Amino acid sequence: MALPAKLQNDLKQFQRVQQDLQSVAQQRMSFDMKLREAVHTLDELKTLPDDTSIYRPIGGLLVKAKGKTEVEELLTEEKETLEVRLKALERQEGHLKEKYTQMQKELTEALDKAGVVAADGSES
Amino acid sequence: MALPAKLQNDLKQFQRVQQDLQSVAQQRMSFDMKLREAVHTLDELKTLPDDTSIYRPIGGLLVKAKGKTEVEELLTEEKETLEVRLKALERQEGHLKEKYTQMQKELTEALDKAGVVAADGSES
Amino acid sequence: MALPAKLQNDLKQFQRVQQDLQSVAQQRMSFDMKLREAVHTLDELKTLPDDTSIYRPIGGLLVKAKGKTEVEELLTEEKETLEVRLKALERQEGHLKEKYTQMQKELTEALDKAGVVAADGSES
Amino acid sequence: MALPAKLQNDLKQFQRVQQDLQSVAQQRMSFDMKLREAVHTLDELKTLPDDTSIYRPIGGLLVKAKGKTEVEELLTEEKETLEVRLKALERQEGHLKEKYTQMQKELTEALDKAGVVAADGSES
Repeated sequence: MALPAKLQNDLKQFQRVQQDLQSVAQQRMSFDMKLREAVHTLDELKTLPDDTSIYRPIGGLLVKAKGKTEVEELLTEEKETLEVRLKALERQEGHLKEKYTQMQKELTEALDKAGVVAADGSES
Repeated sequence: MALPAKLQNDLKQFQRVQQDLQSVAQQRMSFDMKLREAVHTLDELKTLPDDTSIYRPIGGLLVKAKGKTEVEELLTEEKETLEVRLKALERQEGHLKEKYTQMQKELTEALDKAGVVAADGSES
Repeated sequence: MALPAKLQNDLKQFQRVQQDLQSVAQQRMSFDMKLREAVHTLDELKTLPDDTSIYRPIGGLLVKAKGKTEVEELLTEEKETLEVRLKALERQEGHLKEKYTQMQKELTEALDKAGVVAADGSES
Repeated sequence: MALPAKLQNDLKQFQRVQQDLQSVAQQRMSFDMKLREAVHTLDELKTLPDDTSIYRPIGGLLVKAKGKTEVEELLTEEKETLEVRLKALERQEGHLKEKYTQMQKELTEALDKAGVVAADGSES
């Protein structure tokens, strides 16, 4: 059954929001994992003597850090950057979720009126 | 041919047990490989002089170990944790296998009575 | 509907050009990424003291470099090789793109005459 | 069209030989690559001073080698083992290729007599 042009258009937009939501959620999870690793590494470093020899990767190389403090500063900076970006992604994800729920509701009603049942993004 | 509701339900449960069994078997193999690697690394370390310089990974960093003994202690701990989790997974896998065999038997009989042949989880 | 032998042949050649173009574009992107990494590593090295201890990978080993200068020389060489190969790939990609556009135009016209619509490489 | 039981059986065996051949060829290529890397690493090591500090991977650790000579000995051993296994795989691949060609010839004739055309392992 052919849907009215407006509904077809709304469904396409709904699917785009769904894809954006998935993509943002994936990014958010990836940043969350990086943040956890940075925090975990910082915790582990705390347990080590100050004069521990540490190498960090630059490109394919391993370069000796000036000391534990230098590495902790670099990691803390990275951690803070990750936290800022994570918060931005969480906000974005929240907005997309709201939009998604709203569109889903409107589409379900519109499809209902048009005599179609499903509103999970697939035409019946 | 439509199956009776009870049989359909039993088949779904059977498939869930099958999936659980596969997932647990995969985890068991993954822990088994980690355990083998830990054991192999400990064996290799034994052949090295006590004052050998060793770096171990923390996050993306490489951090110098206090000495061979420290690394051997960390690895032995890891090995023991892996052994405990491996045993738990093996037990879980055993229970799931029993359940699987039992359900398979019951389903084969039930499908037989219902006049259906296969009982590998797929409806005929 | 069967296409004339000449058109079928032209379509096959067109598809081959399309595949070559994709393969060259992928190689170009891969070399571009390697170049960016080399440039980035050189930039990072500049910020480090001259006597920084650096290890570079050889096979699965990590081998201590004579010094920062040695690593910078090796990386600069690598960078220059990458730049030369990247330019060659960009030229090749340019030629393939021209060929692709030309063939697409000719095929669209030929298929048009033969009463067929699409010219994206798929027969209708 | 159903094939005679003997032919069906021969086709199955032929497909098994084909799969074995592919699997052995893949293993051979993988060992060939490992051998090339070992040779390349040995060549690179030759260019380095004898007192170069070298770390080698053991499990997830990096362990300092006693010296360049130790690493060269380990790599030479590895190279020799790889050469032996590579030769065995090449012999095996040769035998399978012969068998494959022979079976292909016989099958083509048999299918020809049975009035079937293709003999690439697929029934027509």
